Amino acid sequence: MNKIEHIGIAIKNMDDSNALFTKLFGKPPYKMEAVESEGVKTSFFEVGDNKIELLEATNDDSAIAKFIERKGEGVHHIAFDVLDIEAEIKRLKAEGFIVLNEKPKRGADNKLVAFLHPKSSNGVLIELCQEIVLKE
Amino acid sequence: MNKIEHIGIAIKNMDDSNALFTKLFGKPPYKMEAVESEGVKTSFFEVGDNKIELLEATNDDSAIAKFIERKGEGVHHIAFDVLDIEAEIKRLKAEGFIVLNEKPKRGADNKLVAFLHPKSSNGVLIELCQEIVLKE
Repeated sequence: MNKIEHIGIAIKNMDDSNALFTKLFGKPPYKMEAVESEGVKTSFFEVGDNKIELLEATNDDSAIAKFIERKGEGVHHIAFDVLDIEAEIKRLKAEGFIVLNEKPKRGADNKLVAFLHPKSSNGVLIELCQEIVLKE
Repeated sequence: MNKIEHIGIAIKNMDDSNALFTKLFGKPPYKMEAVESEGVKTSFFEVGDNKIELLEATNDDSAIAKFIERKGEGVHHIAFDVLDIEAEIKRLKAEGFIVLNEKPKRGADNKLVAFLHPKSSNGVLIELCQEIVLKE
């Protein structure tokens, strides 16, 4: 675990929340991106060396829609940057964590991602993420 | 807002959770501290340039005890490092955020802290914190 890569926050309305977090940080999101496979729209704010990711559901089956239905808006996950996601998945599984994605999948922001079930990590949904580096 | 200073996680049992997060990060907490005025025991893990703070209630009136009763274990707050906490309190109040501590109070880890009500920030309890620098 190198650092906190980002904190994901489930929100209901992207325009309202972009305006709110722009006030909080004193600057607008530096990018927005849809991840169709996950049924979400995202926006990213920079805070020092970390990011805040806002997540809005684009359909009712999206994990974000279900999260908000159960818990309301708020922190959805913490993402940690790792150097070798497959090695970390193996290590954390051996340590007893429930890994939701044995094979990492493609996430937002050009990342390979895998999640740990909150049941095995004190109620915190944890994302591991590794930057995808394109070979020339 | 300079950076994410730490993420606070409400937990039920410090020994169990210290063991769990030691596995997650591959290293133990670098310090533990009680904040009697808040009714909490804390432990701190380093992750890159950020920290994870575990919070266990030491009495039933503690905000952490009430949080766990309502929501279970999980992310309790996000703390942002600021240079001038009184100026930030004034600025965020003017922007419409509900500031819970008009005068910053003493928190864990040698900090002055103030909280923003989650109602005004998308369900996220936000802590502002400023390092206390002792004059010689």
